[in-house]
Amino acid sequence: MIQRLCIIGVGLIGGSLARALRSAGVVSTIVGCGRDETHLRRAVELGVIDSYETDPGQAVKGADMVMLAVPVGAMEDLYHRIMPHLSAHAAVTDAGSTKQSVLTAVRAACGFVPPYFVAGHPIAGTEQSGVEASFAELYQKRKVILTPEPDTDPEALRKVRAMWEACGATVVEMPARHHDEVLAATSHLPHLLAYSLVDTLATLDDKAEIFEFAAGGFRDFTRIASSDPQMWHDVCLHNGPALLAVLELFEQDLDKVRAAIAAGDGEYLFRVFSRAKAARDQFCLR
Amino acid sequence: MIQRLCIIGVGLIGGSLARALRSAGVVSTIVGCGRDETHLRRAVELGVIDSYETDPGQAVKGADMVMLAVPVGAMEDLYHRIMPHLSAHAAVTDAGSTKQSVLTAVRAACGFVPPYFVAGHPIAGTEQSGVEASFAELYQKRKVILTPEPDTDPEALRKVRAMWEACGATVVEMPARHHDEVLAATSHLPHLLAYSLVDTLATLDDKAEIFEFAAGGFRDFTRIASSDPQMWHDVCLHNGPALLAVLELFEQDLDKVRAAIAAGDGEYLFRVFSRAKAARDQFCLR
Repeated sequence: MIQRLCIIGVGLIGGSLARALRSAGVVSTIVGCGRDETHLRRAVELGVIDSYETDPGQAVKGADMVMLAVPVGAMEDLYHRIMPHLSAHAAVTDAGSTKQSVLTAVRAACGFVPPYFVAGHPIAGTEQSGVEASFAELYQKRKVILTPEPDTDPEALRKVRAMWEACGATVVEMPARHHDEVLAATSHLPHLLAYSLVDTLATLDDKAEIFEFAAGGFRDFTRIASSDPQMWHDVCLHNGPALLAVLELFEQDLDKVRAAIAAGDGEYLFRVFSRAKAARDQFCLR
Repeated sequence: MIQRLCIIGVGLIGGSLARALRSAGVVSTIVGCGRDETHLRRAVELGVIDSYETDPGQAVKGADMVMLAVPVGAMEDLYHRIMPHLSAHAAVTDAGSTKQSVLTAVRAACGFVPPYFVAGHPIAGTEQSGVEASFAELYQKRKVILTPEPDTDPEALRKVRAMWEACGATVVEMPARHHDEVLAATSHLPHLLAYSLVDTLATLDDKAEIFEFAAGGFRDFTRIASSDPQMWHDVCLHNGPALLAVLELFEQDLDKVRAAIAAGDGEYLFRVFSRAKAARDQFCLR
């Protein structure tokens, strides 16, 4: 049971966590924190949080669980501000899309990664943002990756794990570096490609008409381009090496596909498309 | 009213057309045609077609409307086979994803594009294939592009237009070349990128794990990579110039995004992502 949960950043991710824990009956009090008071008041009205603070230092006081659900670029400054006010018994975790950079931010703020800090990332989300888009079921049957360090306190790890499991998620652990490589491939690169493609098409002269004849496939393919630009700007800047590495592999393969089209090499195209379909169909059977 | 509709290629597209027209009560008899008799028997069982022929020449006999719903690479050979058997009063149309190449195929078979041939493309589909995936509502509120030639018979054009309107679609006309450019951007390129990305990831060593941590965004982004490889192989080979042109624009823009990540140029990334989100959100309000 979490006595006092402090969620900094009450948006889709933080708000859904609050709703899920409340719905599971495993939390007593939820304090929200953020920069926009209108938004926090709305979160109280919606019953997502019980009360709010706009100062992170005030917000974490007395909390036994602190969730940092802010864009990864905001972590270091935020950690500086909460650190002096954390309770001795608090576990602190985050929901950032990159894990090495979050650990680096915490290390920069504290001089080391404190044992009570458990870096985490729920593999869930939608292209929506904000507390209005949050819902209690977001994490059901989804994976949450935790990336504990050698010095992580087992009790803090247990508490964070139990919190996510109460939301219906499956928790797995892996090194932060490995997380960043895997997510660069399956999440960060697709977001980058979707944003880049939509921007390319939007800057073509006849954009109005181009989008007019876009169908369901395009709608699905580009859904992630409706995600929060600030969050994804942060992700790209904070997982640069892993993202650039997989982008390079992708561009090499795309060059081969382009050459095959130019050369009329149907066999090559058919082989690539068939392999991709098989992989994608298999992925969707999971 | 269509007295005798012949559909060559009774899959998702052809099957859905049959179901929609039947459901609208605007067709008397539907003859299917294809290479796989098991498949055609299933289409009869499902009530999608009334009867079938495996020989296209036999299938078109007596039909007043002929729909060629086959991959665009099969058009020329198919047209050769049906041409001698078409009724004098038949309108012939197709549902191919590329229009210049279909007109070229028909021209190659006949020496010219006959006035009764109306090239068309319903902007609708799913990543599924086959008659089992077909449904009567596929074309409702969707666009169908017709690309008539200067010599197209107005009566044939009217009949094809009326057929699609009976399915609940909105019909628009444009030159074939323009169709191919627009669709290269909004359909052919996204398919190429989705196939290529999934194939890149599938050939990474730890592919099992990579897909294991893919979330809903990845599922949507890659949905079109589950499309029929033969059909998309044909599209890429038959719309090469337009596809390569928009691919080049995309790759130029992607290079700039890559450079921005490498340089830590967050302003550039934020600008691209914000523009893309605005364009995509606007597109989805249509």
